[in-house]
Amino acid sequence: MGIPNPALDSSLHNSECLDPIWDAIRKEAKLEAEKEPILSSFFYSSILSHNCLEKALAFALANRLQKPTLLATQLMDTFFNVMKQDKGIQQSIRLDIQAFKDRDPACLSYCSALLYMKGFQSLQVYRVAHALWGQGRKILALALQSRISEVFGVDIHPAAKIGDGILVDHGTGVVIGETATIGNRVSLMQGVTLGGTGKETGNRHPKVAEGVLIGAHASILGNIRIGECVMIAAGSLVLQEVSPHSIVAGVPAKVIGRVHDHYPSLTMQQGN
Amino acid sequence: MGIPNPALDSSLHNSECLDPIWDAIRKEAKLEAEKEPILSSFFYSSILSHNCLEKALAFALANRLQKPTLLATQLMDTFFNVMKQDKGIQQSIRLDIQAFKDRDPACLSYCSALLYMKGFQSLQVYRVAHALWGQGRKILALALQSRISEVFGVDIHPAAKIGDGILVDHGTGVVIGETATIGNRVSLMQGVTLGGTGKETGNRHPKVAEGVLIGAHASILGNIRIGECVMIAAGSLVLQEVSPHSIVAGVPAKVIGRVHDHYPSLTMQQGN
Amino acid sequence: MGIPNPALDSSLHNSECLDPIWDAIRKEAKLEAEKEPILSSFFYSSILSHNCLEKALAFALANRLQKPTLLATQLMDTFFNVMKQDKGIQQSIRLDIQAFKDRDPACLSYCSALLYMKGFQSLQVYRVAHALWGQGRKILALALQSRISEVFGVDIHPAAKIGDGILVDHGTGVVIGETATIGNRVSLMQGVTLGGTGKETGNRHPKVAEGVLIGAHASILGNIRIGECVMIAAGSLVLQEVSPHSIVAGVPAKVIGRVHDHYPSLTMQQGN
Amino acid sequence: MGIPNPALDSSLHNSECLDPIWDAIRKEAKLEAEKEPILSSFFYSSILSHNCLEKALAFALANRLQKPTLLATQLMDTFFNVMKQDKGIQQSIRLDIQAFKDRDPACLSYCSALLYMKGFQSLQVYRVAHALWGQGRKILALALQSRISEVFGVDIHPAAKIGDGILVDHGTGVVIGETATIGNRVSLMQGVTLGGTGKETGNRHPKVAEGVLIGAHASILGNIRIGECVMIAAGSLVLQEVSPHSIVAGVPAKVIGRVHDHYPSLTMQQGN
Amino acid sequence: MGIPNPALDSSLHNSECLDPIWDAIRKEAKLEAEKEPILSSFFYSSILSHNCLEKALAFALANRLQKPTLLATQLMDTFFNVMKQDKGIQQSIRLDIQAFKDRDPACLSYCSALLYMKGFQSLQVYRVAHALWGQGRKILALALQSRISEVFGVDIHPAAKIGDGILVDHGTGVVIGETATIGNRVSLMQGVTLGGTGKETGNRHPKVAEGVLIGAHASILGNIRIGECVMIAAGSLVLQEVSPHSIVAGVPAKVIGRVHDHYPSLTMQQGN
Amino acid sequence: MGIPNPALDSSLHNSECLDPIWDAIRKEAKLEAEKEPILSSFFYSSILSHNCLEKALAFALANRLQKPTLLATQLMDTFFNVMKQDKGIQQSIRLDIQAFKDRDPACLSYCSALLYMKGFQSLQVYRVAHALWGQGRKILALALQSRISEVFGVDIHPAAKIGDGILVDHGTGVVIGETATIGNRVSLMQGVTLGGTGKETGNRHPKVAEGVLIGAHASILGNIRIGECVMIAAGSLVLQEVSPHSIVAGVPAKVIGRVHDHYPSLTMQQGN
Repeated sequence: MGIPNPALDSSLHNSECLDPIWDAIRKEAKLEAEKEPILSSFFYSSILSHNCLEKALAFALANRLQKPTLLATQLMDTFFNVMKQDKGIQQSIRLDIQAFKDRDPACLSYCSALLYMKGFQSLQVYRVAHALWGQGRKILALALQSRISEVFGVDIHPAAKIGDGILVDHGTGVVIGETATIGNRVSLMQGVTLGGTGKETGNRHPKVAEGVLIGAHASILGNIRIGECVMIAAGSLVLQEVSPHSIVAGVPAKVIGRVHDHYPSLTMQQGN
Repeated sequence: MGIPNPALDSSLHNSECLDPIWDAIRKEAKLEAEKEPILSSFFYSSILSHNCLEKALAFALANRLQKPTLLATQLMDTFFNVMKQDKGIQQSIRLDIQAFKDRDPACLSYCSALLYMKGFQSLQVYRVAHALWGQGRKILALALQSRISEVFGVDIHPAAKIGDGILVDHGTGVVIGETATIGNRVSLMQGVTLGGTGKETGNRHPKVAEGVLIGAHASILGNIRIGECVMIAAGSLVLQEVSPHSIVAGVPAKVIGRVHDHYPSLTMQQGN
Repeated sequence: MGIPNPALDSSLHNSECLDPIWDAIRKEAKLEAEKEPILSSFFYSSILSHNCLEKALAFALANRLQKPTLLATQLMDTFFNVMKQDKGIQQSIRLDIQAFKDRDPACLSYCSALLYMKGFQSLQVYRVAHALWGQGRKILALALQSRISEVFGVDIHPAAKIGDGILVDHGTGVVIGETATIGNRVSLMQGVTLGGTGKETGNRHPKVAEGVLIGAHASILGNIRIGECVMIAAGSLVLQEVSPHSIVAGVPAKVIGRVHDHYPSLTMQQGN
Repeated sequence: MGIPNPALDSSLHNSECLDPIWDAIRKEAKLEAEKEPILSSFFYSSILSHNCLEKALAFALANRLQKPTLLATQLMDTFFNVMKQDKGIQQSIRLDIQAFKDRDPACLSYCSALLYMKGFQSLQVYRVAHALWGQGRKILALALQSRISEVFGVDIHPAAKIGDGILVDHGTGVVIGETATIGNRVSLMQGVTLGGTGKETGNRHPKVAEGVLIGAHASILGNIRIGECVMIAAGSLVLQEVSPHSIVAGVPAKVIGRVHDHYPSLTMQQGN
Repeated sequence: MGIPNPALDSSLHNSECLDPIWDAIRKEAKLEAEKEPILSSFFYSSILSHNCLEKALAFALANRLQKPTLLATQLMDTFFNVMKQDKGIQQSIRLDIQAFKDRDPACLSYCSALLYMKGFQSLQVYRVAHALWGQGRKILALALQSRISEVFGVDIHPAAKIGDGILVDHGTGVVIGETATIGNRVSLMQGVTLGGTGKETGNRHPKVAEGVLIGAHASILGNIRIGECVMIAAGSLVLQEVSPHSIVAGVPAKVIGRVHDHYPSLTMQQGN
Repeated sequence: MGIPNPALDSSLHNSECLDPIWDAIRKEAKLEAEKEPILSSFFYSSILSHNCLEKALAFALANRLQKPTLLATQLMDTFFNVMKQDKGIQQSIRLDIQAFKDRDPACLSYCSALLYMKGFQSLQVYRVAHALWGQGRKILALALQSRISEVFGVDIHPAAKIGDGILVDHGTGVVIGETATIGNRVSLMQGVTLGGTGKETGNRHPKVAEGVLIGAHASILGNIRIGECVMIAAGSLVLQEVSPHSIVAGVPAKVIGRVHDHYPSLTMQQGN
C-alpha cells in the first residue's frame, strides 16, 4: 500500500532546495492578492513577505492566537524557533497540508489550508506544543492548548502522539486526550473525541492506527486499539477495540461492514 | 470654489414606509437601554443610532467579526453595500429574525436575536458571503466563512443554497457543505452537519426540503434528499434519502415514526 | 455515601480563616511563575497580586470576556461585587474547582482549572449571571450568556439552576436551557445538550439529579427527570425519564445496565 | 412579505460630477498601493473602496480615533453624517487639503495629507466637533476635542471659529482656545498657542485675521487682534494687538519689520 | 493671604463623610449621560458605577494607560490600592480637581477634568508613581512615567516633589525633572520645562515656590529658586533665581515687572 | 578632542564577538525582572528571550508602533531585516544608547533607554525609515514617520541625515525637516525644530555640525549652518548661520558667549 506522497520527497525548506508546497503557496497567494484588494496586504504579510513556509506559518498562527498576555511577536518567535530546529515538524507540516489539499474537496489551495482552516492550524500549534512539552516547558505547552481550545474549539493535549498526514476537518469540538496516539494518514471530522474513561491517571486514551477515518461527533473512549483502516461512523460511541478494516456504527458501536482495498481516511467514504 | 458634489446631495434613508420588525427592534432597544446602564450605549450605537435594520445589522456583524486584517469599518461598508442592493437578503433577514422569535422560546425579543444569537448572526454573514460568491468575490467570501467559523464555531460554505425563515439554534459546531441546499422554514440545532462523503468534488451534499427539523449533532452525509417536514432526531447519522413527513433516528438512522399535520421545524417537537 | 469534601470544610475567604484551596493555588502559581518566564507576569497579575480567590477569579474572567462594549475593568468590578456578597457562590467556586481537580486526570492543579479550563470558567460566569438574573438585571445576565457562548462555545441560560461540585469537561458545544436543573456533583462532557422540545415557553427542560454523568454530545430533551447516579453514554439521545442508577445508551437511548455502589460523576466510568 | 424599504431604494453616491481633488487622491492611492504591498490594503480600504472624499476622510479619522468607548464604526457614521449635510465643511476640507499641498514642500500628494498629516486630520475633526457644538451636542464635541488632544497632541476647542484654507503644520502642541477666531488662509506651525489670559470666562482669546503666519511655539494670549498678513516669528510671545502686515518677534514680541506684497501664510517666509 | 478652599474642608471619602466634589461629579455625570447617548455607558462605567472618587479615578486612568504589557485590570488595582491607603493623595486629588475647575475657564465641570483633561490625569498618575517610588517600586514607577509620556506627552519624573492644588493646563510637552520641587497652588501651561543643566546627577532641577504661574513653553533650567507668586511669561528661558512677586520674560529672561496683591497662579494673568 | 567611546570599540553583535552593551542590557533586565513581578514577563519577552540587541530593539519598537494596518509581527520583521543587514545602523544604535546613558542623568541604565525613552526609540525608527527611503521604499518610510509622529510626537523626515551618538531628550514636539543634516554627538531637547522657511522644495533645512547642543523649543529655520560645538539656548529662534563654539540666545537669537574647551552636547551645560 505504498501511497506516493510528493510532499515527502521535497527536501524541506533550506533555500537551496526544492520545496514544491511552499512554491505553490506563493503562487496561489500572488494570484489571490491580485484578485481581492481588501485582502492583498494580508496575503503579502502572511505569505509573500516570508522566505520559508515555517516563517509564514509562525506568522499566521501568532496573529490568530495573540492576546494581551501572549504577544503576537513573542508567539511568532516561539513557534518559529521550534519549527526551524525540528525536521520532524517541518515534514509533518507539509504532509498535513497535503492531506487537506488531497482529501477535503472544499480545500482548493494549500494557501487556504494555511490561512483559513482551523483544523490545520490547531494541529500545527499542537505540534509545537508537543515539542515544548518534550523539552520540559509544560506550562507553556498547556497555555497553548488552552488558547487553541478557546480560539478554535479544538482541545488536543500536548502529550498526545500524532503521526503525519492528518486531516482534522472543520475541527470544532475535537478533543484528543493526554495518552491518545494517532497513526499516519488519519482523518478526523468535527466533534470527534478520543477520551478517557475513569478518573485514574495513566494510560487511558485510544490508540488509533494508520488510515482510520472517524466521523463527526464520534466518541472513542478508553485505552483501546482502533485497527488500521477502520471507518467509524459519525455519531458513534466506541468503547471496545476495533479490528483492522472494520466499519463500525452505533451507540454503542457494532461492526456493520468491512473496508476493502482502500484507506478510509484517504477516500473519505463515510457510508458502507 | 463651491464644488457641486452629487454624492452628498441626495436625501437618503428617510423612512416613510412600514417595517414592523425594525420598529419593534427600536422599541425593545429603547426599553432595554433604560434598564441597563452598562449596556445603554451599546443599544444606542448598535440600534438606536441607525435608520434601518440593514445598517444596524451591518454594524453589529462588523463589530463582532473585526480583527486587524478585517477592520470593522471596512466590514460594515461591505455588509451594508451588499444588503442595501439585494432585496432578497432584506427579506431573508426579516424572515429569519421572525423564525428565531417564533420558534425559540428563550428568544424574548427581536433585539436579542439581532445582537446576541450567534446562529442568527452566522446565517446573515453567510447570506452576504453567498452574494459575494455570486459576484465572483470568492476570496472574500471564503475569508468571511473562515472568520465565522473561528468566532462562532459555525461553518457554512458560501456556495451553499439556503432558503428563508431559517432557525440555527445555538449554532456551535454546525457545518453546511458547499453543494448543500436548504429549503424555507427549516430549523437546525447545534452541531448539525450537512456533509459530503468521499473526496471527489462536485454535487456531494444533502438537499434538505422545506419544514425539516434536524436535532443536535445529527450528521447527514452525501448527496441525498431529506423530504418535506422530516424530523431527524438529535445524534442521528443519516446516509440515505428520507421520504417526506418521516421521523428518523439512530446511528445509522431508521424511520421510527411519521409527522402528522405540522411542520416539525415550526413546532420544534423533537420526540415522536 | 457521605463523600468527604475538603473544599467544603474551609470557612471561605475572610482573611483570618483558612482557605486551603486559595493557599494551594498561590503555591502552585509561585512555582509555575518561576518555571516559565513568558508567563510569570501572567501568574503574578492573575493570582499572586490578589488577596482572595474571588478577586483572582474576577480578574481572570474579566480579561477573558472583555470586548469594546464590555470593558475588562467594568466586568471585574461586576463579577467581584456579586461574588463578595454571595456566600453561596463562594462555596460553589471552591466545590467546582475541587471537582475539576478530583475528576479530570489531566487537571494537575487548581491553578490550571482557574486559569485555563473553559468549562470551569463558563460555569463561574453562569453563577454570576444567575445571581444578576435573580436581582432583576436580566439584560446584563443575557449579555454575559451571549459572551460566554461566543468565547467558549458554552451556552448556559442564566435562569437554569445548577448545584455545586459540577465538572463541565472541555465544554465546547454544551447547551443548558432556561428551565433545566442540575443537582450536586454532576459531570457533563463536551457537547452535552439539556434542551427543550416544542416551542411553548414554560417548564420544558430536563431535571438532572445528583451524581449523574453525561457523556459527550449526548442530548437530553424535554421536561424529564434523570435520576440519581445515572450514566448516560456519549452520543445518546434521551427523550424520557431515566430511573436512578441506570446506564442508558443509544439514539434514542435504552437502559443497558445498572450503576452499582458509586457515583458515575465521581468515578467518571463511561463504559458499563 | 415583500416589505418596501425606501431606505434602501435610493441610488446614492453616483459621481457624475467633478471633484478634482478626490480624483487626484484616487489616482495617487492607486499608484502607491501598487508600489508598497504592505500598505496596499490600507490604501484600498482607506481610499479606493470609497466613492467620495467625505467617506474616505470619515473612514481615516474613525480608525485613528477609535478606542473602546468610541467605536470606529460609530465614529465613522458620526463624522460622515455631519460632513454629508454640511456644504461648508465639504468646501473647507478641500481648501485645507489644497493648503497642505501648496504650502508644505514635504507634502508630496493630497493623499499623504489625508492619511498621514496629523495637523490636517486634527483640523477636520475640529470641523466636525464645531458643527456638533452648534447642534447642541456639546458633550460629544468635547469628547472629540479630548481624543484629538490625546492622539495628536492638538487641542482645539470646538467653539473656536476657524476659516478655510488653513495649514496646521506638524501640529504637536497646538492649542486654540474657546473664543479664538482664525481667518482664511492662515498657517500655524507646531506648538502655537492662541490662549487666554486671566481666569474669567467670556471673550478672552485672540482674533487672527486672514493671511497670517505664526511660527513654531509662538504664544498669542488674550482678546487681541492680529491683523491681516502678519508674520509672528517662532518662539515669540504676543500680548498686544499687531497691526496688519507687521513682522513681530521676541518675548514679549516687538515689531521688527514689514511684510510687503505677499501673504506670509502662503509664502511661508519665516525670516524678515 | 489665607485663600479659602472648599475642597480642603471636606473630610475625604469614607462613606459616612461629606465629599462635596464626588457628589458634584456624580450629579454632573448623571446629567451628561442623559444628554448624550453615545457616551452614557461611558459616564456610567467611569463614574456612576463607583462608590468613591478614588475608584472612579483609578478606573479612568487604567483605561487610558492600558496596553498589552500593562493590563487595565492590573493598573486599576495598582492605582486604587495606592490611593486608598494614602490620605495625602486623596487630598491632593481633590485640591487639584478644584484648581482645574477654578482656574481654567474652559473647564465647565469637575467631571470633565476627571475624564478628559490630560494635564489633570498625568498629574494623578505622577502622584501614584511618586508613592510607588517612595515604597521602593522604582521600576514600576518609571514604567508609569514612560507610559504617561507616550500617551499624553507629559513627562514627570516620579521622584519630583509636587504640592497640592496644581493646574497643568493642556499639558502637551511638559517636562518636570527628578529633583524639581513645586509648591502648592502653582499653575503650569503646556510645554513648560523644569529641567537640569549639565550631566552630573544630584540636585539639579528648579525649586518652584507657592503661587507661581509659568507660561507656555517656558524653560526653567538648573537648581534655582523661583520665589512665591512669580509670573514667568510664555516662551521665556530662566537660568537664574527669580525673587518673589517678580514678573520675568525673555530669552534669557529679565525682570519686567512686579506682581501686586495676588497669586498669579490663581488669577492666571499672563500679561503685566 | 578624541573622546573615548567604549561603544565604538565593541565589534558589534555577531555572537562570537564581544557586545558589551548588549551584555549590560541583559544583566540589567535580569535584575529588574526579579524586582518587579508585574513587569517580569515584559523584561523577558522584550530582552531576555532575544539573542542580540537588534532583535530586542525590533521587538520593542514593533510593539510600540503596531496598529491594525501595521501588524506588530510585520513591523518586527521589517525592522529586524533592515538592522541585521546594515552595519552602520548597528553601530548607530550602540552609539546612541551610550549617548543617553552618558548624558542624561535620569537614564540609569541602557535598558531604560531601550524600553522607555521615546527620544531614543523615535531615533531608531528614523534610522530604519532612512534606510528604507534609500532603498526606494519611500511610501513605507513615510508611513513610519507618520506613526512615530502620532505615537511619540516626534516628527523626523526619513530623508534627513543624522550622525551617530545623538541624544534626543524627552522628544515631544521635535521636528526635523527633509534636508536637515545633523553631525555626530549632537544633543537635542524636547520641542526643537530644524525647519524650513519658504515653500519652495529643495535644500531648505539647517545643517548642524558635530557637538552642538540645542535647548528646548528652540527653532532653527532655513538652510543655515550651525557650527561645531555651538550651544543654542532653549526657546531661541535662529535664522542665520552660527559660527563654531558660539553660545546664542534670544528671539531672534544673538551671540551671547563662547564655548570653551568642551562639547556642549556632551557636558549638557545649558547656561553660559
